[in-house]
Amino acid sequence: MSEEHSKIAVVGLGNAGLPLAAVIADSGIEVKGVDINEERCRMINRGQNPIPEEAGLGELIKEHGGKRLVATPRFEDARGCRTFILIVPVFVDSGNNPDFAIMKEALSSLGGILKKGDLVVLETTFPPGTTDGLVQEQLCRSSGLAESDFFLAYSPERIMTGYSISRLREFPKVIGGRDEESGMIAYQVYRKFICNLHLVSSAKVAEMIKVMEGCYRDVNIALANELFKICEDFGVDFFEARDKANHQFCHIHLPSTGVGGHCIPVYPWFLIKEMEKREHPGNCRLLRASRESNDEMIHYWAERILGECLKINKPLSCIRICIKGITFRAGVKEFYHSRNLALAGLLMEKGLDAYVYDPLLSESDVQAKGLRYIDPQNADLLFDPFLLTFEHPERG
Amino acid sequence: MSEEHSKIAVVGLGNAGLPLAAVIADSGIEVKGVDINEERCRMINRGQNPIPEEAGLGELIKEHGGKRLVATPRFEDARGCRTFILIVPVFVDSGNNPDFAIMKEALSSLGGILKKGDLVVLETTFPPGTTDGLVQEQLCRSSGLAESDFFLAYSPERIMTGYSISRLREFPKVIGGRDEESGMIAYQVYRKFICNLHLVSSAKVAEMIKVMEGCYRDVNIALANELFKICEDFGVDFFEARDKANHQFCHIHLPSTGVGGHCIPVYPWFLIKEMEKREHPGNCRLLRASRESNDEMIHYWAERILGECLKINKPLSCIRICIKGITFRAGVKEFYHSRNLALAGLLMEKGLDAYVYDPLLSESDVQAKGLRYIDPQNADLLFDPFLLTFEHPERG
Repeated sequence: MSEEHSKIAVVGLGNAGLPLAAVIADSGIEVKGVDINEERCRMINRGQNPIPEEAGLGELIKEHGGKRLVATPRFEDARGCRTFILIVPVFVDSGNNPDFAIMKEALSSLGGILKKGDLVVLETTFPPGTTDGLVQEQLCRSSGLAESDFFLAYSPERIMTGYSISRLREFPKVIGGRDEESGMIAYQVYRKFICNLHLVSSAKVAEMIKVMEGCYRDVNIALANELFKICEDFGVDFFEARDKANHQFCHIHLPSTGVGGHCIPVYPWFLIKEMEKREHPGNCRLLRASRESNDEMIHYWAERILGECLKINKPLSCIRICIKGITFRAGVKEFYHSRNLALAGLLMEKGLDAYVYDPLLSESDVQAKGLRYIDPQNADLLFDPFLLTFEHPERG
Repeated sequence: MSEEHSKIAVVGLGNAGLPLAAVIADSGIEVKGVDINEERCRMINRGQNPIPEEAGLGELIKEHGGKRLVATPRFEDARGCRTFILIVPVFVDSGNNPDFAIMKEALSSLGGILKKGDLVVLETTFPPGTTDGLVQEQLCRSSGLAESDFFLAYSPERIMTGYSISRLREFPKVIGGRDEESGMIAYQVYRKFICNLHLVSSAKVAEMIKVMEGCYRDVNIALANELFKICEDFGVDFFEARDKANHQFCHIHLPSTGVGGHCIPVYPWFLIKEMEKREHPGNCRLLRASRESNDEMIHYWAERILGECLKINKPLSCIRICIKGITFRAGVKEFYHSRNLALAGLLMEKGLDAYVYDPLLSESDVQAKGLRYIDPQNADLLFDPFLLTFEHPERG
């Protein structure tokens, strides 16, 4: 590796990109952050942290923002860099196929400044084969360079909102190259700011590692949800049983209203859709069943809510039901694929007198989502979708 | 608890019962072992261990067999005991419904000697609700006692063939009563010989704990098998990806030819069949998909074997294919629901020239199973179902 590769740009200063850029800066390396959000760039350059829920990030932004870490909305400002790390989102569309629109746009802009000998590392989670395939094609097309003119590698982000800095500092991180040289060079660059780094044999293996982790989580949450429903049917306390069932060889997860967010409910589709394309849908029977089972948990909880309504001496249409929380996870103001939001909508669809309260949201925030706000003390029945508990305020 | 309850009988001296009886004897308690197999009883009383693959058992049987541990085929010989521990098998029948025939017979015999104030503890894994239901009914009927005349509890065996003694000595064990008093008394008796013992709120919870563990294993093996097939399709080394995907929050299992033995492939059916009976089959979507997926792995491996045959320059019908191992697990001479045995049969059904070699079996053992024996060096293609590897002996 030439020392030149230590001139680093991070493209995408979102929940994953900004903590990484801050950690790189904190390791003593000058880093350019590129993000289309101009206001976000200004904040960072003033030393202000745009993601306050991220522990430890504020200090790093305060120390390095506008100094070692300079944010900019213009790719041209990163022209002097030799390593480009891309963390821009890939979602799935309404048909559950990966949507590369934002990624393609970023690759197109990057192509405009890419030079011979540069290193490009992707961190976004996407279907295995994407780095060697779509990413490389787009980069060649937009830069006019040949494949062999630049180095290309993949290192999946493994952060978790709220814990990103400690994850980057302690958690094992993998990196793999499109070819052996790319892998080696990328490994040497990343070693300067990631302690617990592991080189794997290819970009595709690194891509698969990240998707497999997500699948493990989704399937095990679906299993926990099934076992929870079965325990309820048997009159057994799931949480007591789980506590004693789990040991070094058994890791039963927690039940929920389903799985939301940009990660776990999305990654299984990367494999399912690819297997369908290859006409091997049978290879994904469990992944698909888990996805469906998790998404359908809102119907189970709607039924449970109706069961609780039986205990209230009022006409069903007059029972004010409050869902206490509509974010996809407690304490994180994100709504992507939130099953709690979906549950509130489902109750309204059923014609029930359903309301929402969320400690992270104002009355107008709730209304902006097409839902009705309620002060919890005015509800007849409260359902906490994070604790999975019911409250009947009137009954004390 | 009265001190009397320390007079213990263990009913069923199989792979689970004998290690338990030996550990009880080793803790200084006199124990009667009841088993219909007379030859097994004679061996034990002579100090000979009938399960040589069980580490540490030989020493215990040598020391206590015929002394503190006396084995007998007659229930009457256990008449003086006040605690009866039952570990007799419950299988599933061809329709995957639990088969309680052996259990009912044991309960009927036990009823003949059961006295007021006795304690009965079940250790067999069976559907949640069986202790309070079928077991109690059968005991009342066969003994003529009322429910309240005897104490009843459940404590699932958590052994693993080969490691039973260390499991009993170190692994957490749970126990729960039909009622609170039964639970307390059973807990006090078991504490004398089980160090890591945990009292749970009911027999049903204890039953559920054991079945949930098995379901976790079955679903996660099915997931590993799916991810393995997907990795092969993508050209990714599953084992490399798994090694780096696993960490404190991710526990991807190992792939296989499916799941055999008396435990993991059986327990999910206890929940599936009960949910079907209650017309809640949707609560078991994942459990069922996992069961089917694991059982169908032999078709995947048959296809992979055909793929390997493409590399051999011989007519397909003349390629001598050898399955190296037909027990359900490496090193354990057990065949119940063995998928390796099923794979050998499947290849023969397909008209292939399929043979078997198993280090634990003689030529006539193999023939007795309706399969053909081969010396591995005479085969054209070897498949090791435990390592999932192929060998082509001719090609060196």
